[in-house]
Amino acid sequence: MAHDEFAIIERYFSDIGDSTGNAVLGVGDDAAVVDVPPGDQLVVSMDTLLGGTHFPIDTIPADIAYKALAVNLSDLAAMAASPAWFLLSLTLPENDSSWLAQFANGLRQTADNYDLQLIGGDTCRGELSITIQIAGLVPSDRFVTRKHARPGDLILVSGELGNAGLGLAQKQDRVDLPQDLQLKCLQALNRPQPRLELIPFLREFASAAIDISDGLQGDLGHVLKASSCGASISRDAIPVNAWIEQQQAYHYALGAGDDYEICCCIPARHEGEIENWNLGHPGCRLTVIGEVTESGYVLQEGERLIDLTNLQGYRHFD
Amino acid sequence: MAHDEFAIIERYFSDIGDSTGNAVLGVGDDAAVVDVPPGDQLVVSMDTLLGGTHFPIDTIPADIAYKALAVNLSDLAAMAASPAWFLLSLTLPENDSSWLAQFANGLRQTADNYDLQLIGGDTCRGELSITIQIAGLVPSDRFVTRKHARPGDLILVSGELGNAGLGLAQKQDRVDLPQDLQLKCLQALNRPQPRLELIPFLREFASAAIDISDGLQGDLGHVLKASSCGASISRDAIPVNAWIEQQQAYHYALGAGDDYEICCCIPARHEGEIENWNLGHPGCRLTVIGEVTESGYVLQEGERLIDLTNLQGYRHFD
Repeated sequence: MAHDEFAIIERYFSDIGDSTGNAVLGVGDDAAVVDVPPGDQLVVSMDTLLGGTHFPIDTIPADIAYKALAVNLSDLAAMAASPAWFLLSLTLPENDSSWLAQFANGLRQTADNYDLQLIGGDTCRGELSITIQIAGLVPSDRFVTRKHARPGDLILVSGELGNAGLGLAQKQDRVDLPQDLQLKCLQALNRPQPRLELIPFLREFASAAIDISDGLQGDLGHVLKASSCGASISRDAIPVNAWIEQQQAYHYALGAGDDYEICCCIPARHEGEIENWNLGHPGCRLTVIGEVTESGYVLQEGERLIDLTNLQGYRHFD
Repeated sequence: MAHDEFAIIERYFSDIGDSTGNAVLGVGDDAAVVDVPPGDQLVVSMDTLLGGTHFPIDTIPADIAYKALAVNLSDLAAMAASPAWFLLSLTLPENDSSWLAQFANGLRQTADNYDLQLIGGDTCRGELSITIQIAGLVPSDRFVTRKHARPGDLILVSGELGNAGLGLAQKQDRVDLPQDLQLKCLQALNRPQPRLELIPFLREFASAAIDISDGLQGDLGHVLKASSCGASISRDAIPVNAWIEQQQAYHYALGAGDDYEICCCIPARHEGEIENWNLGHPGCRLTVIGEVTESGYVLQEGERLIDLTNLQGYRHFD
């Protein structure tokens, strides 16, 4: 694609996103140049989505573009950083102008929605693969990591868990959902909402946070490992849709992944802030699902206690 | 690779490079956090190398790691930015621990040499592909772009051109070089030296710069287009090895690419600085190959003038 590369970048990717941002020099040179405002730190993340692995190869290009940005934005949200700019490396099997136009439009729309500017990147010819490197800004030392959860902290999650996994199951004909739930779950799968609105709450109250991309059980496990703590969570407290509750299909919420909600820990003294938050943000409710403990990692299911330490265990059990 | 991913990152990629740098938080969270010193700007670039396209699939892993970093470092050099940190997205067909160990060692050695820290990234399972996003620092507004070459500026290149292309030709049995030249050219192909030593010279004197990754003819063409200028260069002035000169095989220098030398323009009043530079840097000599003009893009070859505007033209001609 060497000779096409410059033309592709110029045609499709040279004007994506808000050019009034921090970029001093954008697409079209050996590198881009960016200002980082004094008093801010830079938060950076990079994720690759492979066709056939992270999304079906026939996913519509605008959905691929959306999701590639959304999963990276979700990483920024989990760190309490505001989106600033991104780089794109796109590997494509062929120079398909219709695919490129749809992909670039999806990217442009999403970048505009989230005040992000595309400032550089690369294109190659090969199996479909999208790598996005995203950067956000946070006032110095106000970022949130996985490391500082403490025993006694409350464990919260945003939104409803399991919808994306259920959407995938529907798409693969493993379940047969009612029509309105189908739409909701496919939306959760293809158009996950990165929870950027939580950034002020996280900066103010969170001792630790992570985005739930691999399933609550595993991702909360990462927080506990990084913080050297345990946790006790209640299955019935996990916010799920009515179908999951009726079918007792909690494995979608615990292990299926792709939800891109935020799991965070807050000191118990801030409990009152949760209700305040929920009153103001009905579309991004926070729910307490348990608390951080000294050690162990258990799920209360009625009278039973299930050990979550062995990540594979619960899936086999279910 | 979902379940292996964390283990792979922790085992091979969690301690690469200088941890005394600008990273506040490195590998192992949703994102990394970086300080940008006051008065500096951030310079960022991202390049993907695909197995079978950018390097033969059987290239030794340490050479792949080296080259993936070197091509990104070369972009920083062209912008006059000092290396700071990088992110890695690695797609691998299988979890091959010997390959991973060799690749990580190559990466570690190269990162150490260039004072770079690996602060985050991603791994996936798929066809071999390495994406590196690199960041460097430059005092505010001292970066160098392709845009500000002016008529009358001298055009310089570093080192010798054509060696990498000749190395590839040797590897593919298209030429049969003497033994010592073989070594030199294969070294140029597999271990290109990013010209970071030129950074102070570029900051001080260059009106424009680019790294020669796609061949002198095309890359200088990008500078001319971005600067809205022309150029006249002399074929016999282009620094090449004795074999290229004897065989009159200048297409290796003009079009073969992969050299990762720097082509820059400097105002003619700074001509005296070139000799000063060369006295102090015999391993990275600068050579004047022509000058920037108002318009047109021509190569002088003895009495003949060859129009370089049509990039394909010269290759067909040769």
